[in-house]
Amino acid sequence: MRLLLISNSGKPLYWWCKKEIADFVKNEEVTFISAATVYSCVEYYQKAQNILKEVGVKLNHLILDQKTEELIDRTSVFLVGGGNTYQLISQLKKRGLLDKIKRQVKKGASYIGLSAGANIAGPNILTTNDWNVMGSVVFEGLGLIPFNINPHYSTPQDKILSSAEARDERIEEYLVFNKNPVVALEEQTFLKVESNKVQVGGDGKAKVFIKNQKPKEFKPGDNLDFILL
Amino acid sequence: MRLLLISNSGKPLYWWCKKEIADFVKNEEVTFISAATVYSCVEYYQKAQNILKEVGVKLNHLILDQKTEELIDRTSVFLVGGGNTYQLISQLKKRGLLDKIKRQVKKGASYIGLSAGANIAGPNILTTNDWNVMGSVVFEGLGLIPFNINPHYSTPQDKILSSAEARDERIEEYLVFNKNPVVALEEQTFLKVESNKVQVGGDGKAKVFIKNQKPKEFKPGDNLDFILL
Repeated sequence: MRLLLISNSGKPLYWWCKKEIADFVKNEEVTFISAATVYSCVEYYQKAQNILKEVGVKLNHLILDQKTEELIDRTSVFLVGGGNTYQLISQLKKRGLLDKIKRQVKKGASYIGLSAGANIAGPNILTTNDWNVMGSVVFEGLGLIPFNINPHYSTPQDKILSSAEARDERIEEYLVFNKNPVVALEEQTFLKVESNKVQVGGDGKAKVFIKNQKPKEFKPGDNLDFILL
Repeated sequence: MRLLLISNSGKPLYWWCKKEIADFVKNEEVTFISAATVYSCVEYYQKAQNILKEVGVKLNHLILDQKTEELIDRTSVFLVGGGNTYQLISQLKKRGLLDKIKRQVKKGASYIGLSAGANIAGPNILTTNDWNVMGSVVFEGLGLIPFNINPHYSTPQDKILSSAEARDERIEEYLVFNKNPVVALEEQTFLKVESNKVQVGGDGKAKVFIKNQKPKEFKPGDNLDFILL
């Protein structure tokens, strides 16, 4: 399997990672999944398309309410855009697309996930920062990797004001109920997964949380292969 | 009904609001609900008890796995502590306590909710900042008030880095799927609800989000009675 899992936000869209995406995609056509937005999927696709065109990446839009089977079957690279993770997973699940995408990735398609798209690559989506604004009861992930991602990670700065919201405490709460590790990615940071290699890339840190262990930080260039064991 | 809904965090526990709690409680005994913690309920109760003793408030602990009926029936003030909102609501629901607490409040008991405890006072808990780390499918609230609370509100400071996480965007996403208003409370801010009066108190702002309207900010002393209409 070949995955690029990116913690991305800010405007313009993909400002720092579009070159990274282009390098990863090479000359393949890309199937863009816009389902994480709670607004217009078409506008989201057009925006992504315009920006990635600048770096020579061609996007095809997976339109949820059309026949998607044939497009998925010929996809060599998926790009799952950010937005609301609960929206993304429930929209895909409702149409039976989780299994289809997973099967295609297992067969060799590459997978690029941005934020929500990175969240759904793990066993479940319960380390998303997003709110479950639609009351979805779908929490499973694609299970492409044996750990969860938490994008947009930042070390809590202010001990008093942030304590109720401190990211580390949330991840520790997750580990009270779940066994799989969590990799928190700062902004402008990504993981590249290729067969049994996992490498940190970008400009920020990755912080690995494992149940009953002290969290550890890694920097760009470090490998996290141990997390696949 | 008589409610005190507090956005509280930081240490020591209740540092800025304990006097406010004491004034609201008067000389009644208080039933403390510790169910929002994912750690030790007993330790949580003891901590709260020790701190509120300083301001003359006596807490009785509602122990989830004991007979709770009799204690609820003679409760004149509930104090629902903060923690993880999904944990809190699922623990109460599982034991049939949501209806019992609600009934007692409707009969005249006062209700103090801190953070998670404030979140569950509304129609649903989907504007909590907490993560659903246990994969709970209970999203209903006590429905004591016709609007949701979002505690620990802060205006996003940094347009680039915070955009994926901006609180206002999340609340707007909530309003795509839901009709009831949301009142976001900054730290050290509370709402006091008495019969049909709602007043902002504490040191921060309350920001009211209503579907298809521009959000509005209110300061301590302002009344939000309109939100009950």
